[in-house]
Amino acid sequence: MNLHIKGVGAAPGLAIGQVIWWRKDKPTVQIRHVDQPEQELSKLQKAVEQAKEQITQLRQIAARRMGEAEAAVFDAHLAFLDDPSFTGEMQNRIQSQSKNAEAVCAQVTEEMSTMLASLDDEYMRARADDIQDVGNRLLLLLSGKSPFDPSLLKPGSIVVSEELTPSDTAQFPEGIAGMATARGSKTAHAAIMARTLGIPAVLGLGNGIDRMKDGDTVIIDGDKGEIYINPSAEAEQAARTKMEQQKKVREQALAEAAQEAVTADGKRIQVFANIGSLNDVEIALANHAEGVGLFRTEFLYLENDHWPTEEEQYKAYSRVLKAFGERPVVIRTLDIGGDKDLPYADLPKEENPFLGHRAIRYCLANPEMFKVQLRALLRASVDGTLWIMFPMIQSVSEIRAAKALLEECRNELKQEGVAVADSIPVGIMIEIPAAAVTADLLAKEADFMSIGTNDLTQYTLAADRGNEQVAHLYDAAHPAVLRLVQMTCQAAEKAGIVVGMCGELAGDREMAEVLIGLGLHELSMSAGAIPEVKQAVRRVDSKTAEGLAQKAIQQENGDQVRKMAKRSQ
Amino acid sequence: MNLHIKGVGAAPGLAIGQVIWWRKDKPTVQIRHVDQPEQELSKLQKAVEQAKEQITQLRQIAARRMGEAEAAVFDAHLAFLDDPSFTGEMQNRIQSQSKNAEAVCAQVTEEMSTMLASLDDEYMRARADDIQDVGNRLLLLLSGKSPFDPSLLKPGSIVVSEELTPSDTAQFPEGIAGMATARGSKTAHAAIMARTLGIPAVLGLGNGIDRMKDGDTVIIDGDKGEIYINPSAEAEQAARTKMEQQKKVREQALAEAAQEAVTADGKRIQVFANIGSLNDVEIALANHAEGVGLFRTEFLYLENDHWPTEEEQYKAYSRVLKAFGERPVVIRTLDIGGDKDLPYADLPKEENPFLGHRAIRYCLANPEMFKVQLRALLRASVDGTLWIMFPMIQSVSEIRAAKALLEECRNELKQEGVAVADSIPVGIMIEIPAAAVTADLLAKEADFMSIGTNDLTQYTLAADRGNEQVAHLYDAAHPAVLRLVQMTCQAAEKAGIVVGMCGELAGDREMAEVLIGLGLHELSMSAGAIPEVKQAVRRVDSKTAEGLAQKAIQQENGDQVRKMAKRSQ
Repeated sequence: MNLHIKGVGAAPGLAIGQVIWWRKDKPTVQIRHVDQPEQELSKLQKAVEQAKEQITQLRQIAARRMGEAEAAVFDAHLAFLDDPSFTGEMQNRIQSQSKNAEAVCAQVTEEMSTMLASLDDEYMRARADDIQDVGNRLLLLLSGKSPFDPSLLKPGSIVVSEELTPSDTAQFPEGIAGMATARGSKTAHAAIMARTLGIPAVLGLGNGIDRMKDGDTVIIDGDKGEIYINPSAEAEQAARTKMEQQKKVREQALAEAAQEAVTADGKRIQVFANIGSLNDVEIALANHAEGVGLFRTEFLYLENDHWPTEEEQYKAYSRVLKAFGERPVVIRTLDIGGDKDLPYADLPKEENPFLGHRAIRYCLANPEMFKVQLRALLRASVDGTLWIMFPMIQSVSEIRAAKALLEECRNELKQEGVAVADSIPVGIMIEIPAAAVTADLLAKEADFMSIGTNDLTQYTLAADRGNEQVAHLYDAAHPAVLRLVQMTCQAAEKAGIVVGMCGELAGDREMAEVLIGLGLHELSMSAGAIPEVKQAVRRVDSKTAEGLAQKAIQQENGDQVRKMAKRSQ
Repeated sequence: MNLHIKGVGAAPGLAIGQVIWWRKDKPTVQIRHVDQPEQELSKLQKAVEQAKEQITQLRQIAARRMGEAEAAVFDAHLAFLDDPSFTGEMQNRIQSQSKNAEAVCAQVTEEMSTMLASLDDEYMRARADDIQDVGNRLLLLLSGKSPFDPSLLKPGSIVVSEELTPSDTAQFPEGIAGMATARGSKTAHAAIMARTLGIPAVLGLGNGIDRMKDGDTVIIDGDKGEIYINPSAEAEQAARTKMEQQKKVREQALAEAAQEAVTADGKRIQVFANIGSLNDVEIALANHAEGVGLFRTEFLYLENDHWPTEEEQYKAYSRVLKAFGERPVVIRTLDIGGDKDLPYADLPKEENPFLGHRAIRYCLANPEMFKVQLRALLRASVDGTLWIMFPMIQSVSEIRAAKALLEECRNELKQEGVAVADSIPVGIMIEIPAAAVTADLLAKEADFMSIGTNDLTQYTLAADRGNEQVAHLYDAAHPAVLRLVQMTCQAAEKAGIVVGMCGELAGDREMAEVLIGLGLHELSMSAGAIPEVKQAVRRVDSKTAEGLAQKAIQQENGDQVRKMAKRSQ
């Protein structure tokens, strides 16, 4: 039996390599009385300047390798270095208390991060980590100690650490094979980084992480969330064989990715990309997305400290539409609330935010704000093939209200002499159970429908997708979710409108046959999944798929469905 | 145009009467240095004794008029009077700071309630109100001032106040016509009291409440949440006529309540009561409930400071089963979590508790705790007609796991030589969309199903039933909910098992025809609604009802459904 430890599978894939620990020892700080506070002030000033240089450099690296959205965290770091309650407070204390710079730096960092961490606000709690990160950087600079040197991370190695911050991952050299941390979950920053960089990762290992020593050979299974330490020769060989197979499949899929996805019996399935920022456009095009099935516009709001202007939005939409030309780009209007807060929007604190005032509900209640987005969309409509999609639709009246606002904007623009495309398909997300159950009623008011399985699953199964305690109950492949998908497809077919899927389920190659069998004609997913899903589609016979789908919705749970789907490959 | 103000309709019905303000002036407190702290100590001691007497008396009145569950709040008040951090702290400060008793009483009350109110825990926040209530009582006793005299509240009057606490409502004389407060919502204590006492109430009026003066004549509309101040003679007459009609309908319904509910074309509909405590049994019997469709067992857990023992539970179940004899009593196993917290259970803090670790999920994860309840149920099974029901079922595997635990308990009891009924129907709640959508699969493992529309509605519509911001989206009559009800009924019929409804929708007389048309054979509701629903059932023709139901599920929203249902009366 191999020694293995279990954590959270945060980025998929297998990796084998040797452990390199990224140790993070905090410098010990002594509190000293200083006679010349001016010296300490200039020491602090110098450290702040150096920190700014370092962070600016990290920001550039991160933007290049991971995109603007991921790099934005460093703007927060830079802002803290000019914050009166952070570095300003350090200056005050040096003067008023005649203490050394290191001591006040450690103090203020600790106080401010503790304060932020105690707030009942996810956004502010995340800022607590940023403060720690910036404060540690300053402390190292002040104490003249060298931090861990990322050049020690050799290509092919497995990075192991208590925790990895954005500053850390930005410094990863090319070719890191895998990563493992004691803290962190699927939604941690490190998890997002790992997935973006395509590095298999297991996070949240807790104390188990101490079983790995520098130089140990480990197998990381990012799908299962398991790590095998110093595996037997057979186990290592088995893992290498599996990796080899996966690589081959992946290479073959990539080679054929430019071709359309047509089932064995000639049914065309459109394979689109989900994108969440302008940087995703390139990846989507590189993976031969036939369009964008879901363009999440939240990044425009989340990365700003103000409501994004019409002009700011127009530019972003226009850029994506131009990049895709004749290929359709489905832009979803703002889906704020739920787990996404906007500091400047004054969203209410809710007991159950996922069941609250979010997305189209919030937009219809704030029409002036909403109209800014709708105007920007209409202005961009002449630059490509725009489809507009409203999220969280529950009833016909919401579609009518949103369409009325869109019409209002169109008339305004016409009067202003601004060009707007003649026909823009207007569709809805099917992500509330009610919408799936009454899809026939909604289809009368929509030009297309797209099933968002992430939300649909959590409502249908009454299981918060972010809650680890009910994680075992959350499964988009649950027969109840599949039945709702089928109802929606049937309603769309009857109404003669397009129906797609843009939740995570759509990017699961092993589920492609079932999804086609349920009646879907369009699948939209993370760009990286496109080649393999296209490949999977080509193996499907649509008649057999229908039979498989009928069997799937009779299963007792998602596990059974997935096993059945896998056997059918 | 009559002057009218709008609040929250917290208890239904119309009332006309003259305003009596229940003013709550806090005594002004002066901080004095005292030379003889002993005198202040004995003054405090005397006030505490008097407060205990008053509260004990209030508790008795409340228990008699509103039941043990409602009276339990006074136990918390009594406990505070012996709490070292409350009255104990007052004693300490009198001695250590040589201050007068009133001053320390005001100080400690303020500090402790502020501290409790700041906690991120609904239970503790409610305790903050209790501390205020007890502290004010002590302060009045210490200052020798007289509080408002409830004997001023004449029968037929409308009580108006900033806020009404349990201490206040317990002192209501018989015959109060209506109540109105500036603070409070549908779930406030005052709202529950008003509904229990059958007093029409409008709460949450805010500053609008100041428009009412002592002696004003007002019409309170507890259904619409509106109050008309000094209405015209015509408006008053119209309201009186309406009240008279409602009274007649109610009287007639009561006169026929003992008879079975059979539709005009001879279809028998069983009309059951929902009960939530032992005190509800009497009301259910008085209203001729044909059984209990939902016995909520949470009160046993919420009113205790420890997990209720098998013996404690057995006694409660046995008492209810004996009271109903051959009439079935459906006892629902513990539905904790969500909006119901247990201080001693160490439930996790969740981002979306309604989508979290609650009800059967919690019970299956804590089998030893769950088995205590199952054993108590089995032991009580010989004392009446027990049906056991599991809440929040999502998949077949949960039913199997719960039934396996039940079987384990049955075997244990058999070995211990304890008598258990031979056949106990075991059923499930249909309150998660997935359960309704796959009711055919679940029906294979269940002896009966009961649709809980409160939860089913909030999940199906993704609208928290406690969130005012999405209140306009929450409607159990939404066609999507009705379609899920119909799916469940069809699955039950096919499987040949009983299907009922125990959510609030079931007690809506105007919806009875639609519900029968959807295929329900059993409706369970607050006992007070039974006579009128029975009356409504008798007017239904089941064929016409089917047509009406088919039309209902084609409507666009719940409003349209309700209007249609009303027109059909």
